[in-house]
Formats: sequence, C-alpha cells, structure tokens
Amino acid sequence: MKYIKIFSISIIVFYHNICLGQTIKEDSAFISKIYNEILLNSTCYEELRYLCKNIGHRVAGSPSADKAIDWGKERLEKLGADNAYLMPVEVPHWSRGKNEWGKIISNGKTEDIPVVALGGSVGGHIKGAIIEVKSMQELSALNSEQVRGKIVFINKPLDAALINTGAAYGGGGEIRRRGPAEAEKLGAIGCIIRSLTLADDQFPHTGAMDPAGIPSAALSSFHSKNLSKLLTQNNDVQIEIQLDCVNSARVMQANVIGEIKGRDFPNEIITIGGHLDSWDVGEGAHDDGTGCVQSIEVLRTLVAMGYKPKRTIRVVLFINEEFGNDGGIIYAKKTVEKGERHLAAIESDGGGFTPRGFSSQSPDNRFNEFMTWTSLFEPYQLHSFKRGWSGVDIAPLKNDEVALFALTVDNQRYFDYHHTHNDVFENVNKRELQLGAAAMTSLVYLIDQHYSPLP
Amino acid sequence: MKYIKIFSISIIVFYHNICLGQTIKEDSAFISKIYNEILLNSTCYEELRYLCKNIGHRVAGSPSADKAIDWGKERLEKLGADNAYLMPVEVPHWSRGKNEWGKIISNGKTEDIPVVALGGSVGGHIKGAIIEVKSMQELSALNSEQVRGKIVFINKPLDAALINTGAAYGGGGEIRRRGPAEAEKLGAIGCIIRSLTLADDQFPHTGAMDPAGIPSAALSSFHSKNLSKLLTQNNDVQIEIQLDCVNSARVMQANVIGEIKGRDFPNEIITIGGHLDSWDVGEGAHDDGTGCVQSIEVLRTLVAMGYKPKRTIRVVLFINEEFGNDGGIIYAKKTVEKGERHLAAIESDGGGFTPRGFSSQSPDNRFNEFMTWTSLFEPYQLHSFKRGWSGVDIAPLKNDEVALFALTVDNQRYFDYHHTHNDVFENVNKRELQLGAAAMTSLVYLIDQHYSPLP
Repeated sequence: MKYIKIFSISIIVFYHNICLGQTIKEDSAFISKIYNEILLNSTCYEELRYLCKNIGHRVAGSPSADKAIDWGKERLEKLGADNAYLMPVEVPHWSRGKNEWGKIISNGKTEDIPVVALGGSVGGHIKGAIIEVKSMQELSALNSEQVRGKIVFINKPLDAALINTGAAYGGGGEIRRRGPAEAEKLGAIGCIIRSLTLADDQFPHTGAMDPAGIPSAALSSFHSKNLSKLLTQNNDVQIEIQLDCVNSARVMQANVIGEIKGRDFPNEIITIGGHLDSWDVGEGAHDDGTGCVQSIEVLRTLVAMGYKPKRTIRVVLFINEEFGNDGGIIYAKKTVEKGERHLAAIESDGGGFTPRGFSSQSPDNRFNEFMTWTSLFEPYQLHSFKRGWSGVDIAPLKNDEVALFALTVDNQRYFDYHHTHNDVFENVNKRELQLGAAAMTSLVYLIDQHYSPLP
Repeated sequence: MKYIKIFSISIIVFYHNICLGQTIKEDSAFISKIYNEILLNSTCYEELRYLCKNIGHRVAGSPSADKAIDWGKERLEKLGADNAYLMPVEVPHWSRGKNEWGKIISNGKTEDIPVVALGGSVGGHIKGAIIEVKSMQELSALNSEQVRGKIVFINKPLDAALINTGAAYGGGGEIRRRGPAEAEKLGAIGCIIRSLTLADDQFPHTGAMDPAGIPSAALSSFHSKNLSKLLTQNNDVQIEIQLDCVNSARVMQANVIGEIKGRDFPNEIITIGGHLDSWDVGEGAHDDGTGCVQSIEVLRTLVAMGYKPKRTIRVVLFINEEFGNDGGIIYAKKTVEKGERHLAAIESDGGGFTPRGFSSQSPDNRFNEFMTWTSLFEPYQLHSFKRGWSGVDIAPLKNDEVALFALTVDNQRYFDYHHTHNDVFENVNKRELQLGAAAMTSLVYLIDQHYSPLP
C-alpha cells in the first residue's frame, strides 16, 4: 500500500514537472515572439514622435491635454482595442502664463538667469535680498526676523552618492514640496529652490509644490551654485523674478482607456498604463510620454500577434499624475464601484530607458508566483525583481489581491530631463523604449496565463 | 580520535568562514568608499570634456593623436602615477583629406547625401550605375559581367531582433570589412555600404575595411533605405562620390602608460585601459575617450584614497585599436620581453554607458575566483558576469594565467554614435561614465587583494 502511494506520488510529481517544463518552454517561446514583434515592427517610437512634436507638453487642465486625450483614444481604437472610451476626471488647471524671467542683481550689475515657476505657484513680481539655506532643517531653524521681506533660497543638492537616482530624488524632494509654504510662514516674499537633478547643467526643473501664497521657482543646479558663491563674496545680492502663473477653476478631463476583452474571464482585469499629462515645459517625452506609448504598444503587440487573452487587458492613460493624481484615484474608485476584479496593474513612469526589471507591491502569494518567472526575463537583460514602489497612478488600486508592478529602468539620465525644457523626443532612444514595451508585454502575458483570482 | 578530527575540522571551517565573512565585509566597505569617491569627487567627466573639445578626434598617425598622447602622459603624471611613460608604437597613417561628398542622380535630379569614406579607403572620384545586394552571399553570387563598371551597394541592416547590439554589430560587420575587396574582385569601380547601426538616422558610420583599390564609403541607414526604394522605382539611378583619402607612410606614435608600483609584488601587473585613437569624425567620445578617462580615473581614485596596492596597477592608453591594433600587439610583446607577469587586464571599449557587469576570457581557476565576488557588485546594479570577449587591445595578452575582462555596459545607444560625427562629449552622461569607472576600480581592488600567481 505504502509503495503504491509513493509510486503514485512519484508519477504525479513527474507529470507535474513535465507539464511545468512544457509551460516554461511555451512561455519562453511566446516571450521571444513578443520581443521580435516589438523590435522589428513596433510603432511606439513614431507614436511618441507624434505626441511630442504635434501635441507637445500637456499639463492637466490645458487645451493640449484635451488634444492628447483625443489622440490617445483614437490610437487605441486604431491599433485594435475592442473598446476605447474616456473616463471623466475633474482636474486642477494651473497655467504658467506669458512671462517668466529672473535676474540676479549684484554690484550694480544685472544677469539674466533661467527660472521656472514651480507647479502650482502663484504669480507675481518679487525683488529682494536672498537668505540661503542648505536644507529644510536650516530653514526651520530660522525665525521671522531673519526671513521677513526676503527671498528664501533652498540650495540643497540631491545625494549623488546614491546609485538609484530615484532614491536621491525621493530623499531630496521635500525642498520643492514643502519649501515654499515653510518660507511663507516665516514671512518670505518668495522662494527659490535648487533644481532636483544630479546634472550640472543650466536647465531649471519644475514640479509640484504644496500650496503657498508666494511666488516660487526653481534655478538650475549651475545657477544655484553660482548664486551661492556670489552670496559668500558679496553682501549686496538681490534677485528679481517675474511669474505670471494663474490657478484657475478645476475642469473636466479624462482618463483614456482601451481594452482587449478577456475570452474566459472578462471581469478579471490586468491594467497597464502611464500618465498622459506632463508638466508644461519640454514635450513630456520621458515623463511620461514613453509610459503612454509603451502601454499602447502592449495592446498593439498582442493584437498584431493574434493573442486572445483569458482576462481583460486594459490600457489606461491616466490624467493628472503630476498635480494631485486625480486620474489614478478616480480609476481605482470606479473599479470598486463596478465590482471589477484586478489581478494586476503595471505602470511605466520612470522614463523610456533600458528596462532593468520590475518592482512590485503585492500580496505574498502573488509576489512569490511572479518570482518563479524571473528566469524568463534573463535573456532580455532584466535582472532586478524586488518588492518596492509601483507607481503613483496605480497605487490607489492596492488591496489584498492585486499585484502592482513598476517597470524599473536604468534611471541614471532621468533627472537630467525630468520636468525641464529638455524632456524632448530627441532624448528618447528607440530601442530602449521598445525593450521596455517588450518587458511589459511579456509580464502581461505571464499574468494572463498564470494568475487567477485568490480564494 | 575520529571525534577529535571532526572537531578540529569544524574549528578550521568555522575559523575560515569567520575570516571569509570578515574579508567580504572589508571588501564591501572598501568598494563602497570607491563608489563614494568617484560619484562625489571624480574628474573623469572633465577629463573627457578636455579630450573631446580641446583635442577632438584622433585617428592613429594624425597630429591630434600626438596631442592626445602628450595629454594622456601629463594627466597620469598629474593625477599621481609613480611613473608615466610612452611606449613607442609604429602605426599606419590614413587621412580622410579635404573633400568628401556624395550625390544621387535620378531622373535628371541631383540630391546631395552625406557619405563617409571607410577607414583605409583609397581616394578617387567615381560616378556610375548602382548594383544593390542585401548580403555578402548575394554579392558573391554575382559575376563580373553584372558588376563591372558599376558601384556595388551592400544594403544589409543589422539584426534589430538581437538584444545585445554588440552581437548585431559583430554579425553584420563583414559587409564593411570584406565588402569593398569583394566588389573590387568583381570589377566594381566603387563600393558603398549601409552603415552598421540600429538607428534610423542620417549619420553615415565609418570603420576599418580590408585593403581594396576602389573608393569605398558608408551611407546612413536613412539614405540607404531611400536609395534602395529609388532603385526599385527607377532604372536610371546613379551615384557620384568624391573621396580625397590618402594612405601615407607609417609613423611612430606611442601607447601611454602610467603606474602605481606594487608594494609587495611590483612585477605582478594588473592592466586597465582603453584606446586613445579614434576615427577621424566626431570627437571619439564613446569610442573610446570614455575608456581612457575611466582608466585614468581608476588610478586617480586609488591615489586619492591613499590605497597602496600589493601589485603594480598600470593604466595603458593604447594607440591604434581601430586600424590594426598595433598598440595592443606591441604592449603584449613587450610584457613578454620584460618577463612581466600579468594577473589580469581590464578594458573599457563599449562606450561610457551604465555598466552591467564584466565578461571574461580567463583560465578556469581565475574565472571561478572572480565569480565569488559577484555579490559585491549587486548593490551597484551590476548583474552580468559571464565568460565572453574582453577587448581588442588586451586580447594579445592572453595566456594560461592572465584573466582578461571587458567592462560590459548597456549598449543600446552605442551604435547610434559609433564612428560618426555624432560621437561627441554631449552624448556621454556623467554618472554613467562614473559608474563604469567605479566598477573598474572595484574589480582592480579585488584582483589586487585576492589574485596571486598561479603555480
């Protein structure tokens, strides 16, 4: 009896291993076809060219964001979505206005310097003496007497010793977020910050700030260093800045959605996405035009390959990631209202650079299953599979069942371009963009094949 | 007795593991300091700026290569080499000459197109009908009657489906190397090839060809595709090309060498290097200015950290990798003549992009020891440690003892710039360059600490 039992178990294990081996072979072959399809036939680079050159930057609430929404829906329809539609989302409408300039006045001489208003800043004209601090701690240690009537200059560089530039940005971001409101509390008439970048260049970088009633702008790292030096040499340095920014009433825009309906389980959803809005400088190429066209490319590829998914594969181009995450929040709310079951969501919002792997916010069992697939990605030079952050837009989907993934990329160059006039199409490499789309498509395929609802 | 023996072995194993753990901790701490030193204080980006902007491209035999040799020696001395010197090397001297242009003549219309002579091409003026082939096989299948008096156009794209662009280049390179001589054999008056690139741009790419007596040049991938299309539409297409290239007599130049003498074993050598020559277009930034300044940075870093190596650490800036490998061949010959013992050599010649790991040509025991260090590189996002190609300059050092390594990098962009007017300083990212230098320095440190001569 005992021997029969052992024999039976052996047969089952043997059969299971054969099946598993067969599955891995099939998966590996399909993923190889995905990479070939994308590297040889993809359209995502040309989609990005159109988005960047014909629509351009597209801050939430702007007419160009409206154009981008129409474009996204049209592309998803054209490239084979069973169903493409808009999900209304109310977004803020901040605009930069016509004029934006800065001058340093020192020893009777005036030097023009490039500035960009921080996202959400009030407009205004300011001119005054500068009080420089090197951190938020230094700013908090000042009193009103020291700050009143002056322009606070927060000159804190990102930590260049960190290998992951995203961690450097995360650690250094509070000067932009919290700096202006803190400066205002202390009586400052304006706030300028050193750009959140590791590059030593002359591009100022914008980005969201917490609400504050004083004009607030960024200087490039180059001009921040120069200004700091000048302040040590000279007591008589002033800065003059003109910003014409306006915060207008909120307007209705939309998430753009395109689906391939699941053949077997249409109500089980796999979402892939990026955000369609950008800041209103440059062309929003890496942030996050690339994530949008990669997500569209996932759909194009599966349709072109004739793949019939078991589950519903849904591309979402989220609106307003940059200034409140309205699109992500509404999307998550609607999925709950509609009783949809999300198995997974994947976001690309780290720039269109060479993919290195995926980081995941997932329940243990989902994560463990994902980790059995990693060897399938090795031939494509993806090596990094970790627990970690997924993405601003998809994070509101988090629950006990859903696996959330970020495409992680080689981000050494990202903060050279991020939120600047230099975030343009020319700085995206076609193959790096394609490899990211191929990695995302492969993960979508594996999830569609192997995930099932948790009990 | 048996128990005493087991106990003794246990103690030894325990002690060994403690020592090993201690060593790994020390190595890990030292590597962390290397990365900090380079990411915060490195000078390699500014060295590269000088090399690219003040000296520029530097084909072997040219006056600018002479300038680069002087510069290299001066920098190695300045940055702390115990000993910096030149090793004379005879090199060919090919020069592009003054004029270089191409025209497509079709239906009575003339269109100017950019061309670059292949390295080593003869000069001349050619004008004639075109015979297009898609591969070397197609060319070999032609007879003299079909080719005589015409200009052969080899229009074979690199294989975009390969993930490793180096493999695509390797597989596609024969059209440039062997194409002109094959075309000449069949009676062609000239040879044009499609550039060896995966980019869809308008830069023609030069590079070495086997000797041939007919003017030979490259067209960009964009113009190759256009020309091919035109040839299907029109029977009356001609190309006219003027090249003023000259092959002159060989001249003496030099490898540039800088050393930190080994404290314990000065005659055991660890070489690191790149090649100082470039093609005579662009600025030779990625090919191979970056390898040169990274190698110099290894020396600067170890000196700045006060590290006293056990073995001699030697930086070599090789001359004429591109057109005969004279520098590499002479260097290997001299080490044998002097009875020097090389433990290892590391080359960076894949562009100054984010490092991914190392590939190695090594005897088994060296390779196995190297593989015990890989976890030390993981915090720095290096994951690829494999047997494979090392580098053109160091390959002649190969023997039963030496471990040869190539720094392997994310090479998706490399063949966008390679051998073109676009291989300029602006296309190198500071942090990617620094991370490569830090990976090389870390490997040099580990080799110095742990390798010893094989019995």
